[in-house]
Amino acid sequence: MRRKIPVGILAATGAVGQRFVEQLANHPLFQITAVTGSPRTIGKPYGDGVNWLLDGDPPKETADLIVQPTEPTLHERVLFSALPTPQAQKLEPLFAQAGHIVLTNASPFRMDPYVPLLIPEVNPTHTALIPHQQKAYGWDGFIVANANCSTTSIVMPLKILQEAFGLETAVITTLQAISGAGYPGIPSLDILGNVLPHIGGEDSKLESEPIKLCGTYQDGTIIPAPFKVSAQANRVPVVDGHVGSVSTKLGRRVTAEEAIELFKTWQPPEICQQLPSMPTPVLVYRPEADRPQPIKDAKTGNGLAWTVGGVRPCPVNDIRFIALAHNTLRGAASGSILNAELLTAQGFINA
Amino acid sequence: MRRKIPVGILAATGAVGQRFVEQLANHPLFQITAVTGSPRTIGKPYGDGVNWLLDGDPPKETADLIVQPTEPTLHERVLFSALPTPQAQKLEPLFAQAGHIVLTNASPFRMDPYVPLLIPEVNPTHTALIPHQQKAYGWDGFIVANANCSTTSIVMPLKILQEAFGLETAVITTLQAISGAGYPGIPSLDILGNVLPHIGGEDSKLESEPIKLCGTYQDGTIIPAPFKVSAQANRVPVVDGHVGSVSTKLGRRVTAEEAIELFKTWQPPEICQQLPSMPTPVLVYRPEADRPQPIKDAKTGNGLAWTVGGVRPCPVNDIRFIALAHNTLRGAASGSILNAELLTAQGFINA
Amino acid sequence: MRRKIPVGILAATGAVGQRFVEQLANHPLFQITAVTGSPRTIGKPYGDGVNWLLDGDPPKETADLIVQPTEPTLHERVLFSALPTPQAQKLEPLFAQAGHIVLTNASPFRMDPYVPLLIPEVNPTHTALIPHQQKAYGWDGFIVANANCSTTSIVMPLKILQEAFGLETAVITTLQAISGAGYPGIPSLDILGNVLPHIGGEDSKLESEPIKLCGTYQDGTIIPAPFKVSAQANRVPVVDGHVGSVSTKLGRRVTAEEAIELFKTWQPPEICQQLPSMPTPVLVYRPEADRPQPIKDAKTGNGLAWTVGGVRPCPVNDIRFIALAHNTLRGAASGSILNAELLTAQGFINA
Amino acid sequence: MRRKIPVGILAATGAVGQRFVEQLANHPLFQITAVTGSPRTIGKPYGDGVNWLLDGDPPKETADLIVQPTEPTLHERVLFSALPTPQAQKLEPLFAQAGHIVLTNASPFRMDPYVPLLIPEVNPTHTALIPHQQKAYGWDGFIVANANCSTTSIVMPLKILQEAFGLETAVITTLQAISGAGYPGIPSLDILGNVLPHIGGEDSKLESEPIKLCGTYQDGTIIPAPFKVSAQANRVPVVDGHVGSVSTKLGRRVTAEEAIELFKTWQPPEICQQLPSMPTPVLVYRPEADRPQPIKDAKTGNGLAWTVGGVRPCPVNDIRFIALAHNTLRGAASGSILNAELLTAQGFINA
Repeated sequence: MRRKIPVGILAATGAVGQRFVEQLANHPLFQITAVTGSPRTIGKPYGDGVNWLLDGDPPKETADLIVQPTEPTLHERVLFSALPTPQAQKLEPLFAQAGHIVLTNASPFRMDPYVPLLIPEVNPTHTALIPHQQKAYGWDGFIVANANCSTTSIVMPLKILQEAFGLETAVITTLQAISGAGYPGIPSLDILGNVLPHIGGEDSKLESEPIKLCGTYQDGTIIPAPFKVSAQANRVPVVDGHVGSVSTKLGRRVTAEEAIELFKTWQPPEICQQLPSMPTPVLVYRPEADRPQPIKDAKTGNGLAWTVGGVRPCPVNDIRFIALAHNTLRGAASGSILNAELLTAQGFINA
Repeated sequence: MRRKIPVGILAATGAVGQRFVEQLANHPLFQITAVTGSPRTIGKPYGDGVNWLLDGDPPKETADLIVQPTEPTLHERVLFSALPTPQAQKLEPLFAQAGHIVLTNASPFRMDPYVPLLIPEVNPTHTALIPHQQKAYGWDGFIVANANCSTTSIVMPLKILQEAFGLETAVITTLQAISGAGYPGIPSLDILGNVLPHIGGEDSKLESEPIKLCGTYQDGTIIPAPFKVSAQANRVPVVDGHVGSVSTKLGRRVTAEEAIELFKTWQPPEICQQLPSMPTPVLVYRPEADRPQPIKDAKTGNGLAWTVGGVRPCPVNDIRFIALAHNTLRGAASGSILNAELLTAQGFINA
Repeated sequence: MRRKIPVGILAATGAVGQRFVEQLANHPLFQITAVTGSPRTIGKPYGDGVNWLLDGDPPKETADLIVQPTEPTLHERVLFSALPTPQAQKLEPLFAQAGHIVLTNASPFRMDPYVPLLIPEVNPTHTALIPHQQKAYGWDGFIVANANCSTTSIVMPLKILQEAFGLETAVITTLQAISGAGYPGIPSLDILGNVLPHIGGEDSKLESEPIKLCGTYQDGTIIPAPFKVSAQANRVPVVDGHVGSVSTKLGRRVTAEEAIELFKTWQPPEICQQLPSMPTPVLVYRPEADRPQPIKDAKTGNGLAWTVGGVRPCPVNDIRFIALAHNTLRGAASGSILNAELLTAQGFINA
Repeated sequence: MRRKIPVGILAATGAVGQRFVEQLANHPLFQITAVTGSPRTIGKPYGDGVNWLLDGDPPKETADLIVQPTEPTLHERVLFSALPTPQAQKLEPLFAQAGHIVLTNASPFRMDPYVPLLIPEVNPTHTALIPHQQKAYGWDGFIVANANCSTTSIVMPLKILQEAFGLETAVITTLQAISGAGYPGIPSLDILGNVLPHIGGEDSKLESEPIKLCGTYQDGTIIPAPFKVSAQANRVPVVDGHVGSVSTKLGRRVTAEEAIELFKTWQPPEICQQLPSMPTPVLVYRPEADRPQPIKDAKTGNGLAWTVGGVRPCPVNDIRFIALAHNTLRGAASGSILNAELLTAQGFINA
């Protein structure tokens, strides 16, 4: 058996950090050998320091690791970052400079022209930015970002439509799960039996990130995709799973049947088939009128698959659909792990 | 003191019927003197037959009324109908023929060319259809319908924008409360911690009713409004209050500030000021980023006011906004009562 | 018209403080003329500084008051305290020493032998402690505490049973609303679709406070009631309304019918009839098998009445019952206001 | 590989029936070869007829089975019954008479003196009733019942305490999940943000079933356990997992430490170790103050383990504790499957 690649988790005690710990247990390529955490937890075994929010208990092999401070003295080359925004902004470049490969969930570098904003099934070729990033910033390591969890939930079907028919505009309303706000996150008095029609900064992420994700790599830069997005994000009392309700104007008239057939038969880029965590299928089309639903569909494909339904003609634009993805798996930890698998397949990460 | 007008409630024991009973307690113009109900409850005092779903107990004066069968032998000229769709379709014309004025919550006659689909603040002149209805169908009485609760939640701000700037398209996603499905309605296993991205028939109501409501009365007909609506309705775990997330293309470029100023200063048609239940203001603009919210705003103006927020430029169309109305008050019982008040002010209902 | 008594609210910007502001609007005896708040809000108009959690907006007359620091330089003799525990412990004695009458929701002085733990319907004579308190501590003012919200929900029926039949033991399990934890309080990820079988310190309050409340005033002290309580508190995803499930061993064999008749006919002490906020009846017995319920019964009597149901023989002890009270009204702000009304009727508070 | 034992599922399309189908997928001993369902679904492939309420889709191997009517012409000797009460009462004896082994979730025969009310870890010797049942009723087959889901959640720790210390009384309040009411079950308007303090018939099941389960087999009958139970059942807005809050009077004074040590070290009867689905450990003691919780603990041990916490001295009786079990797995389908495994280990079921 091949030796696994040792990896570290930055901010492993937080909500997203815990998902990394959970999802990397028994991973075929990677093994967690370091975890970092807040001052309160440093020096304690992870299993003691963490306020475990997920089912059951932390995996045994990680529970015994001693929580370290988040400093570029870590030995692991590959780091998954669940750092909060301000710390990510400050620390992730230091790690990249010190030679680390940083797979980040944080937002600060997503729109950086040299940082790949990466979803393997959407834009695997964008990793070609990496040498340009290293050269531009003088780093030995590099940063690869995954998209915001709400962007993730809708961008895969957008990309599929764009490739097949062309895409001009998308008008989106999301219904997002509370786990997307981390822990302690949303106070229960604010959300029990309620809708919060605003998530700070989310609308603009939803309006900008898909343009980069669906853009084209060319000569060291990403040419933005030629479509426009309008988005309004809502928080709803759901634990896991972001829903996006989308109206699209396409490059040509398309029937609902054509769009459905496309979603049913679409295959991801070939390199994706080598990635050990890649779900089959990547995108599930549900014909039932009332799907996708968070409690029934978020865990599809171990929380890595998209579910699409409600495909029908739009009286104003061309095609409406509803998309769902698991926000802390596909939209966060598992998405980063899949990015690391792609980087390994492409040779950017080596054992 | 003027004698009150006696009114009857059809299907008074159901969820919407109970709202009628609650909202007509101590009404200045109307007094409930008859209630009808299902075979199980006929012959019993209303207070014994009803499975009261609202706070506390049924109002005393109605609790003692004996539940009658739903037949056109009722003495009351004015009837509020909370009948389910199939019974409404069959029975409401019989009541109108027998000389009753039927104020209905049901959907069958909403799009009938001779039936006013009425919201006093939106289209008070549409009652001019009534004599044409009576003539066309040979009825002594008539039917006036109120809009679907989801339509109601978004049509008032649409109408305001239409009047001021012109309206070309609206792309809508709703987040609707469970009380909209009646009782027993949505099984808890389907909605607790979940979103149901489909409500049977609701999308098409949302796409057609605003066209009629915002249309123009002319020579015995309603000329449809010249805009298009695309809608997708979702059920969320909220008790009362439908939220609509709306992107609009207007007749001209409008800044968010212009739209906000419009919402803050808009006044309903003058006849509305005579209606005893009319809230002041009819539409509340909330400047906070995270409003309107069902639990904080649905009860505004005794559940009769609209709340609008999130007004901002739309990157794809012109203006986005979020609207909220109480679905079983403004969107159902109280809306019908306000319609009856308008009909009284216009002389269609007499003491 | 009699001039109203000016009162101040300590910590008026918090969750309980807001309830004081809401419930004292238009009060016949008291008028808010001062509000204190956290450093963040001091110097701002209350309406701007507060993050209003209740329906609609703060009452106009209080919205314009400038938030002051919480210091014993306030002019108002009567103060309602919504201070958090550590600040209450430190500041309330300073206010009492400076001549203020402090009606507190906080826990530190509830079990103090000289402080009345007061519910007007339960133990109005306990205010006889006040002169002893003033003498013992050398204070010009005094402190009167109301009980913990969970204690409140079950103590009224316990007292009624004790008086009529004698009470030996009560075994209690509570199902408590999230508003009892204040704001931000319980994180939504902890409680949505969940039960938290622990509330810090609540079990011991439930086990000790009823003993004092149902005790007897004699010669400057309260003789503890001769019964024992066992309690286990749970948090459930309910907004308002604490439910207590209680099994009691009484002084003699009692049939369920006797207990029901007692609850239906019981009247509070005579002095209670003078209090303007006193609900009628104080305790509502519901014969339906599935009552009391938080959403249907918590608001009974403006949130000041208890609702009792599920009265039946206990196979182990004597009588089981279920009790409910509104935790932020009867169990907090409105309870304190009622205490102030009692003190006014008894002459401890003067205009 | 040993051939698997073919089994049938009665009422496989309902909520509990679906759990059987889910949990028997890939079972090492049993294979579903027949499913029965309602008239609406008979003749259709199971995957088409069922309204699948669980995650994802029905298991492929069962999805293709044609739904049959529920009649004693089934070929499978072993039948798992998810029949509703009235049908169970009528049909299960007919199946037993026709030679079938019926493992039932229904209540009608639980308290029958000849029917084992069985939980392998609690009372594996009660299967000695089976030949007496066959003789008394003249049946070739037999019925074995599992306990009500609420009884199940608290009976294992009660049995452990009884064996170690003796048990005199238990006063119980439960907080039960909505899935216990089946589908459509509880209307969402009744339970969202609410507690229903009543579940029809549940209190008496909780008060009687533990007496039989903890009783002693002797000469063809079960001698009831010599303790008394008082119970009050509540429905709370939780999807899966029943919580019981319990106060016990034991045979002797016991410290909390003794009780905790007992729960931590207790082992089930030896025969349980042969059962392939038996979780390890069967009972998990959680030292954290706020455990067990439904969302964190219900799935422990694949939903078959009990979780116990909150063990402390009771001021009225001896020991209080909180117990949790998954109501549709341990308390229903998986419990029946474990019973079938025990019957196989004991030779009552043969390949």
